[in-house]
Amino acid sequence: MLTLYYARDTISLATHILLEEVGAAYKTVRIDFGTTQQRSPEYLKVNPKGRMPALVTERGILTETPAMLVYVAQAFGKPELALMDDLFGFAQVQAINAYLCSSLHINHAHRMRGPRWVDAGDKAAIAAMQRHVPVSVSANYDLIESDMLKGPWVMGERYTICDPYLFTLAQWLEQDGVEPARIPKVMDHRRRMSERATVKKAIDQEFA
Amino acid sequence: MLTLYYARDTISLATHILLEEVGAAYKTVRIDFGTTQQRSPEYLKVNPKGRMPALVTERGILTETPAMLVYVAQAFGKPELALMDDLFGFAQVQAINAYLCSSLHINHAHRMRGPRWVDAGDKAAIAAMQRHVPVSVSANYDLIESDMLKGPWVMGERYTICDPYLFTLAQWLEQDGVEPARIPKVMDHRRRMSERATVKKAIDQEFA
Repeated sequence: MLTLYYARDTISLATHILLEEVGAAYKTVRIDFGTTQQRSPEYLKVNPKGRMPALVTERGILTETPAMLVYVAQAFGKPELALMDDLFGFAQVQAINAYLCSSLHINHAHRMRGPRWVDAGDKAAIAAMQRHVPVSVSANYDLIESDMLKGPWVMGERYTICDPYLFTLAQWLEQDGVEPARIPKVMDHRRRMSERATVKKAIDQEFA
Repeated sequence: MLTLYYARDTISLATHILLEEVGAAYKTVRIDFGTTQQRSPEYLKVNPKGRMPALVTERGILTETPAMLVYVAQAFGKPELALMDDLFGFAQVQAINAYLCSSLHINHAHRMRGPRWVDAGDKAAIAAMQRHVPVSVSANYDLIESDMLKGPWVMGERYTICDPYLFTLAQWLEQDGVEPARIPKVMDHRRRMSERATVKKAIDQEFA
């Protein structure tokens, strides 16, 4: 059985939702960011990166959301959730997830995780990064709104692994300083995702 | 026929090498970063992100290196270069490429692309980010050396799409302030990659 290491209000929710979508049997282990448990010796044995999430499989431990989402879809007989029945469709799914991972998520992280990129004691530089988050994250959402989110789901008529990934990141857009009125498609997508039973179940588990 | 838009000394080299590895028929179009041609109206029609690389296919345009590498391997009948014959192996390949994309490449980018994350006029914050690059990028390479690079290739005995990706990023490690002596496996990998005929051919094309 799979075990998902997760922390509340982090990107782990994307994989958690997908585990529900595919009907996986899985356990969860909550890691507490409040006490920086993700840097504890015990968790570093699970994931030497000290980051969320991690998925323990029979073959070993997996990390990195783009990799985990494709793995979960394939492992539970649902590769079509990654459009793997279509060479170019799969490539587009991968391209969107790479953008969410390396652009949107990274830009967002500059609000809370400044010491990854400057000395932890440099308060002025950390504040400078925080001030820029509304600019950089808004630019990401503008591109998602205009070029990526086809509607009703990210890839169009078919629900894919891009949907829980975008939904999870979109939880934070107001805190990131993005004006919701400029991205109506993203906001509509978030609302419809939040109404799915699988999404409610994953969120309820994390906040129980 | 595929067309690869590339710029010299950028991450586009990874896909360029793979196109050579799979024996693809392809054209290249050079984009000049020196004149910020990647932000020109003409190139933004190809890739609205204004970034490198982009791959024009019969079905449309692909971006994002992790997506492009898997696509090229599959499109030319070499899915085994992504270990797609093994569910968990493929997931590991994807996890490594996601780490290279969203951690190593992003940390590296803080040396040259500071205005992505702070106001372009904030010279002190940009300098603060540059000073931290040796710390953050060295930590990435320490983890690659200890936990990721199995040897002789990234995934062990089998050459995969992780190899040109790591090789391309490793071009910049000295400029990023990483001490080569601390990562002997990475340095040996880089040397062996540089001796491959496909790698030499891609580099020669880009610098011709």
